[in-house]
Amino acid sequence: MAHHIGNATTSADWSRQCNDLIHRVCSLYPKNFVGVCQLPQSPGVPPQNVIGELERCVNEFGFIGCNLNPDPSGGHWTAPALTDKYWYPVYEKMVELDVPAMVHVSSSCNPVFHATGAHYINADTTAFMQFIQGDLFKDFPTLRFIIPHGGGAVPFHWGRYRGLAQDMKRPILEDHLLKNVFFDTCVYHQAGLDLLTKIVPIDNILFGSEMVGAVRGIDPESNQYYDDTKKYIDKQNWISDADKKKIFEGNARKVYPRINKKI
Amino acid sequence: MAHHIGNATTSADWSRQCNDLIHRVCSLYPKNFVGVCQLPQSPGVPPQNVIGELERCVNEFGFIGCNLNPDPSGGHWTAPALTDKYWYPVYEKMVELDVPAMVHVSSSCNPVFHATGAHYINADTTAFMQFIQGDLFKDFPTLRFIIPHGGGAVPFHWGRYRGLAQDMKRPILEDHLLKNVFFDTCVYHQAGLDLLTKIVPIDNILFGSEMVGAVRGIDPESNQYYDDTKKYIDKQNWISDADKKKIFEGNARKVYPRINKKI
Repeated sequence: MAHHIGNATTSADWSRQCNDLIHRVCSLYPKNFVGVCQLPQSPGVPPQNVIGELERCVNEFGFIGCNLNPDPSGGHWTAPALTDKYWYPVYEKMVELDVPAMVHVSSSCNPVFHATGAHYINADTTAFMQFIQGDLFKDFPTLRFIIPHGGGAVPFHWGRYRGLAQDMKRPILEDHLLKNVFFDTCVYHQAGLDLLTKIVPIDNILFGSEMVGAVRGIDPESNQYYDDTKKYIDKQNWISDADKKKIFEGNARKVYPRINKKI
Repeated sequence: MAHHIGNATTSADWSRQCNDLIHRVCSLYPKNFVGVCQLPQSPGVPPQNVIGELERCVNEFGFIGCNLNPDPSGGHWTAPALTDKYWYPVYEKMVELDVPAMVHVSSSCNPVFHATGAHYINADTTAFMQFIQGDLFKDFPTLRFIIPHGGGAVPFHWGRYRGLAQDMKRPILEDHLLKNVFFDTCVYHQAGLDLLTKIVPIDNILFGSEMVGAVRGIDPESNQYYDDTKKYIDKQNWISDADKKKIFEGNARKVYPRINKKI
């Protein structure tokens, strides 16, 4: 998305080009793809600026969700927290259209943060902690976010997040966040995905794979692509078929309800 | 440490006060404590500025390690990556004194990052990825770092890090980093610590607990303090007594060899 490049006009033009291209792919392969859009964010530009493109993609193209970048600066983290009212105009439109957002950053232009190895994962962790601190879902009970990469560091530190919420007198995570916040399965090894599905409620896990993702190679330990995440889930024989169906399909239909009008 | 407050003089004075206090505690309770020092870092001030205080603490007080803050700005991330030659004067002194550094940030003064819930964990993840990208341990084969909080997001995303290293044509992590980089056990739930000890080689895990840590409460699911990390390790019956002794003691004696002169 490269929201840090150029200005709001650059971002608007580039987002339209990308979303038009996504729409074209979805139109060519309607049994394979359904679209979500990038939003024309720019550092320092109010988020309401993205509403027109979100409406265009949902209403004209039939897209079912969007991607919200919590850090359009690309690693300098100059935007307010996701729970700040700064973002509320976007949330009002998301609720009205009944579309969720994946919370995913773009390039890092801060040299300390490797994009896929640090910035992505840090953003996931940061967003989840912002949601713990805030009361966003009291104001928007039907607003929904997906945190990619299995939630960053969150499942590994689930006790820390449960404990921080408790020390801060927040409700337990199930009540405070888990009707609104979901994790994908983009974790590239068996033990990591095992932790995710054992710790995070099944209803909060949406299947995610990669094309093209952060890691392109084949794991010499398994002779499979690191990012072929379905294979890890297939091996989880303690998850019932009904629960696997939730991970692979059912949860996506709930979180992205507009998909039901398409497929 | 609050390195973002005041200037280099503030930081020097405050570090001396803190380290003097640590030394006093260690002198009062020599069977319980051995010291590591904070360093008088400040945003924008060259790291060689800390060498005098490091030498004072090691040579005069018998301290056995130090803490290195990769982001003295407190959440604005304005310092170069830890693999940059900017830091080399400190590393030369650490190698000469044979003391390791824990890589741990201090307060966050960027409102998007909760200190203990986001900034700490992000810094751990960021540092590990910097070490993957760089060749620091070719230049300093005996330099040693401990990454706190079980390595941030790293063990949960071990496949991602192995795969990124592979895609970047780096050596496998065991050869590239694991003679020099170690993780503590400050992970506050059983499943997280189980992942850590199953994924990270036992020789790279050093026992860490908290006093006072990020979470102070009692976990209603276990009726134990979240941060009483020893209890989680005690339950790991697949780890041999010899390996547990490494986690609790032996690895610390290797990574912080000056402890052997003390205890």
